[in-house]
Amino acid sequence: MIYLDNSATTKPYKEVLDTFITVSQKYFANPSSLHSKGGEAEKLLIAARKSIADLLAVTSSEIVFTSGGTEGNNIAIKGIAYQHQNRGKHLITTAVEHASSYESFQYLETQGFEVTYLPVNEAGMTSLEDLKRALRPDTVLVSMLHVNNETGTIQPIKEIGEILKDHKKIFFHVDNVQGIGKVPLQLREWGIDLCTLSAHKIHGLKGTGLLYVKNGVTLSALFTGGEQEYRKRAGTENVAGIASMAKALRLTLDEMRIKKEKMLAVKQVFTEGLKKIESVELNTPENYSAPHIVNFSVEGIKPEVLIHALDKRDIFVSTRSACSSKQGGASRILLEMGLGEQRASTAIRISTSYDNTVEEAKSTLIALEEEILNFKKVMR
Amino acid sequence: MIYLDNSATTKPYKEVLDTFITVSQKYFANPSSLHSKGGEAEKLLIAARKSIADLLAVTSSEIVFTSGGTEGNNIAIKGIAYQHQNRGKHLITTAVEHASSYESFQYLETQGFEVTYLPVNEAGMTSLEDLKRALRPDTVLVSMLHVNNETGTIQPIKEIGEILKDHKKIFFHVDNVQGIGKVPLQLREWGIDLCTLSAHKIHGLKGTGLLYVKNGVTLSALFTGGEQEYRKRAGTENVAGIASMAKALRLTLDEMRIKKEKMLAVKQVFTEGLKKIESVELNTPENYSAPHIVNFSVEGIKPEVLIHALDKRDIFVSTRSACSSKQGGASRILLEMGLGEQRASTAIRISTSYDNTVEEAKSTLIALEEEILNFKKVMR
Repeated sequence: MIYLDNSATTKPYKEVLDTFITVSQKYFANPSSLHSKGGEAEKLLIAARKSIADLLAVTSSEIVFTSGGTEGNNIAIKGIAYQHQNRGKHLITTAVEHASSYESFQYLETQGFEVTYLPVNEAGMTSLEDLKRALRPDTVLVSMLHVNNETGTIQPIKEIGEILKDHKKIFFHVDNVQGIGKVPLQLREWGIDLCTLSAHKIHGLKGTGLLYVKNGVTLSALFTGGEQEYRKRAGTENVAGIASMAKALRLTLDEMRIKKEKMLAVKQVFTEGLKKIESVELNTPENYSAPHIVNFSVEGIKPEVLIHALDKRDIFVSTRSACSSKQGGASRILLEMGLGEQRASTAIRISTSYDNTVEEAKSTLIALEEEILNFKKVMR
Repeated sequence: MIYLDNSATTKPYKEVLDTFITVSQKYFANPSSLHSKGGEAEKLLIAARKSIADLLAVTSSEIVFTSGGTEGNNIAIKGIAYQHQNRGKHLITTAVEHASSYESFQYLETQGFEVTYLPVNEAGMTSLEDLKRALRPDTVLVSMLHVNNETGTIQPIKEIGEILKDHKKIFFHVDNVQGIGKVPLQLREWGIDLCTLSAHKIHGLKGTGLLYVKNGVTLSALFTGGEQEYRKRAGTENVAGIASMAKALRLTLDEMRIKKEKMLAVKQVFTEGLKKIESVELNTPENYSAPHIVNFSVEGIKPEVLIHALDKRDIFVSTRSACSSKQGGASRILLEMGLGEQRASTAIRISTSYDNTVEEAKSTLIALEEEILNFKKVMR
């Protein structure tokens, strides 16, 4: 099996599952319970929070555990909007966000908020000048993804953080679900106030994630109830899932240090190989893109058809975001990049993990070229 | 170890963990992905949903998977309130709800909704007459828990459902987190529109739960984004967690059939034994209470002190709801029952599973009596 759909989800690390099982069996008590079994579970929770905070170079009180990336984006965007609406109801994001952000903003528009969707260029990048022009006295939030989940385009988060340092009252939220473990992230230095992470994109477990909320930042919780997570997210803590996320984050950051060159080499094989295949156009920009995503369009062939053909050869790729893959039609992201309806309707996404090899990339390219030739022959 | 804090959380069944591991390893793909690995994960998801729907005697399209009970209650209460506010902004609940419901209503009060909190009698039960009087033309929701998490009191859900059948436009939400697998539940027959369940209270995994939403009932989603869960709850599905919840629900319903008498026998030993201990007053009513919860107060002794004393003997009990246990002070629930500040500040909760035995109950009673005598001696 050549699994190239790691932006949709990843296979959990063995250590992640081991941790989950051990904690579920031996430390199953509720960390809020007053007895010593509850105390042991609470200690584990505190240790996992500290470990994650250290890995992200922030403090424990800034880590809010969630059920995943969608929840994180929803809490951050709606939570800031509702909490600070008396100061202003203008929000800024980009036109190429993941559905969980994009639809949160669309929802807020129905609730009397005004949203500026910054356009992007052909590479999928937003412009700093556009951002500066969009800032208003009533702006309360700038939110954008770091690495685009369809194209891998990296937004200039550091530079945007610099601009926003002159606007202390505007909160800066970064959706880093596709970025963590692949591209550098400096929460403090870049002036990020909120940052969404998901564990299952980094070989952790589905149903686990976190939202970084800088100390002092207040938001309106989506879940009210118990006092967990500094009252920013009520509900019994998934201690086993949280401990396993701490493990996944450590392992993936280790891999980033050790295997970055390997991942880039795989990407280069894909990029160079795809360029040589007739009818293929690359949608991922060669500069300013993450090391694990290559998006391309194949003129005249429906992506589902190619996906199924590769599937039969035990190679697994995808069309776009898994969360939107069943909608059919053209990719909203590629349309916003100005690539046109045809290209936006025929896009394939390859997304690698640190385990994928150059050999796998070469086999995939051969298979892809053969399949494309076959289809072209049939169509002629 | 004698674990008597099963209303806070339970130890996962072995089969639940086995299922979780198998699915996480072999079916890790994103069920929304178009390739065959995604298709296999989707099939598992569909099968788990069908299995749960069958166990609850409803249809698959009525099951919305969540991250747990707190999320379920928040979606149901806020989701119905927001979605139907044009028809009316009056909501009805009881004064003895779990924090996740109670604080959802308190939040809605800050958003212009009007909430009637039905009082309860000394047994913790709400009255049908009070409910009838509270109903208004602008009432859109009646929400209450089935089994109280502190006292085990069972609310007359069936009778309330009957009353509400004459008020077709009022939605009826039941928080069944403490009831499922312990007391009968008839979603269809009782006219329930929404019902919250949590897996970790029935030997499933933390971070998993579901909300039953009757076909045709619309609500405003808390998480917007992907098209998962009939657009009622966006986010990548935790397939392994969901499959393991299906297993937990089946096993716990099997246990309810086979071991109900055993659980009642254990409760009776506790109830009779506690009555004989000096300074102990039962807070759980003998009738209309669930088979797994016994709540009592010990005059003049702080509950934390008794919890720690029993803890040293490897017996684990709790004060009240784990979600509120660190607040200290008197129990809001017992105060609402009119039991007075003293009794409401000295309450202990015993909550059993189908695994607890009569022998464990007897040992616990002996230990408890000894500890109470010790403390009384010291205090004299």
